[in-house]
Amino acid sequence: MAANKQVLLANRPTGWVKESDFRIVETPVPKPGEGQVLIKNSYLSLDPYMRGRMNDARSYAAKVELGEVMTGETVGEVIEGRSATFAKGDWVAGRVGWQQYAVSDGSNLRKIDTNLAPPSAHLGVVGMPGVTAYVGLLDIGQPKAGETVVVSAASGAVGSVVGQIAKLRDCRVVGVAGGKEKCDFVVKELGFDACIDHRAGDLDAALAAAAPKGIDVYFENVGGPLLDAVLLRCNPFARIPLCGMVSQYNATERYGVKNLMMAVGMRIRLQGFIVSDHMQRWPEALRQLGQWVRDGKVKYRESVTEGLENAPRAFIGLLKGENFGKQLVKL
Amino acid sequence: MAANKQVLLANRPTGWVKESDFRIVETPVPKPGEGQVLIKNSYLSLDPYMRGRMNDARSYAAKVELGEVMTGETVGEVIEGRSATFAKGDWVAGRVGWQQYAVSDGSNLRKIDTNLAPPSAHLGVVGMPGVTAYVGLLDIGQPKAGETVVVSAASGAVGSVVGQIAKLRDCRVVGVAGGKEKCDFVVKELGFDACIDHRAGDLDAALAAAAPKGIDVYFENVGGPLLDAVLLRCNPFARIPLCGMVSQYNATERYGVKNLMMAVGMRIRLQGFIVSDHMQRWPEALRQLGQWVRDGKVKYRESVTEGLENAPRAFIGLLKGENFGKQLVKL
Repeated sequence: MAANKQVLLANRPTGWVKESDFRIVETPVPKPGEGQVLIKNSYLSLDPYMRGRMNDARSYAAKVELGEVMTGETVGEVIEGRSATFAKGDWVAGRVGWQQYAVSDGSNLRKIDTNLAPPSAHLGVVGMPGVTAYVGLLDIGQPKAGETVVVSAASGAVGSVVGQIAKLRDCRVVGVAGGKEKCDFVVKELGFDACIDHRAGDLDAALAAAAPKGIDVYFENVGGPLLDAVLLRCNPFARIPLCGMVSQYNATERYGVKNLMMAVGMRIRLQGFIVSDHMQRWPEALRQLGQWVRDGKVKYRESVTEGLENAPRAFIGLLKGENFGKQLVKL
Repeated sequence: MAANKQVLLANRPTGWVKESDFRIVETPVPKPGEGQVLIKNSYLSLDPYMRGRMNDARSYAAKVELGEVMTGETVGEVIEGRSATFAKGDWVAGRVGWQQYAVSDGSNLRKIDTNLAPPSAHLGVVGMPGVTAYVGLLDIGQPKAGETVVVSAASGAVGSVVGQIAKLRDCRVVGVAGGKEKCDFVVKELGFDACIDHRAGDLDAALAAAAPKGIDVYFENVGGPLLDAVLLRCNPFARIPLCGMVSQYNATERYGVKNLMMAVGMRIRLQGFIVSDHMQRWPEALRQLGQWVRDGKVKYRESVTEGLENAPRAFIGLLKGENFGKQLVKL
């Protein structure tokens, strides 16, 4: 029988992740026991949050132990066994890690509808990143029609959905992304009103031009100097959902945010959130996102890397912003 | 007739305020017109927010213009005239500025009950600072019994009330103040569970010892390195009402907050607020604070400087933390 290729955590990185921080192994394909199913994964999702799980630090979620399979979400097909809710032939999204095969009792799986969208999309726009955008923008950011919403990592899996939802809510939407190609995509394909290339120079002036009426919601994915620039242009009672700070995940010297004092006078609310705290919102979010995707109102783009053995390199690229859209690994 | 001593803004300070940024003048005592009253002020309140009004910067409130009377709250007695709601002999708190006399149509005055507490207390514990503490802690901080509340500038007008309310809500309360004398007062007189002297050294270790179960609410008055230390010890879903950042008001080089990334994983909410946005809460807050003061459940301490001509020096001292309790000027 085929072997099960797996990616293990080999070292805890200090600063930038290296490919040598992972180890690729082959183990026997596991056998499902009573009430379990065997899944053959077809795509692995790569997401910035995974960087945090590699650290030996206090966090909201358990860290990955050295020698353990890296944590992550996949989509795949049930090829053997049966649980209370899953049977052979079902397509599932599951939190089963960076590997080709996995057994599960079903508790970490959700059935996906491959008629609604292809399997890979259930790791992106109609999956965890999509729900993150939906909950973070609507519940934490609470945009109102006519307000200005700024979103960083605007071409990414989360940011691209945030901006498109904000447009559907009749906001002025300004993306921030790295490079002209991504900015063009964000404006021309996704329909944002403007996109700032953060590599192109004066962030303050670009924000002033793109958000002339000030900023009401800033959806934070990156951290660093952009947050400082945004804080200076926030309107009273602005909301800043803190979804991630990918620019800081590999920093050995963290960026110091100098303009947080603006939050006092402008009554700004900054609020960190984790999508798994909001499980009760998933059904509505997935239903609505699926509808929008079907209707062509929410578009998405994928970066697909071939082969699990290339997942470490693709992950490092994701942290550097080299991906374009949702980063996946085809297994 | 007596002259009206006034303190005007003479220069916009860069960095630390200097006494020469103010100018003391004497002008004729104004005459109340139809529907106006003349107030003879007995105390002027000095508050950190006033530093912001000296800047030529976008803020939640109008800046003071050069040559204008400094903005500020006083308590005094109506000595002449009559408005719809105020008459001779009434004691009032009013936003009438740094001066001995003022006329008002009543719109910026509220009647005070000098039987409830002496006039000066209506500028502190049963005035704006008290309501700031009440609203900021209870509405923004939302402490629950058994939680740990940390408050900076703990011996000050706002911090001292924050901590005492948190004790009344059965929280563990940790103050942070400058120097042993203030810390002793906070613990022994006000009943906080612990107080950290931020001048005494290792803030991280001191916080770990004083808040062994982590921090659920941090009431922010000062900004700077303390916020970084707190962020590292926040529990999931911690709340950080941002009331002020006095350590930064005179800084020409602002401190950069390095641990804001903790807010993502720990789902921390940081929220700036201004007490004047919450006018509907004032009656309840003042009633409750008055009750607590009468019952001896909330104590307060005042630093009184004699003479309006000494207000600039006292204000600079307040910004440096030289005051002890509510800073007032007796006129």
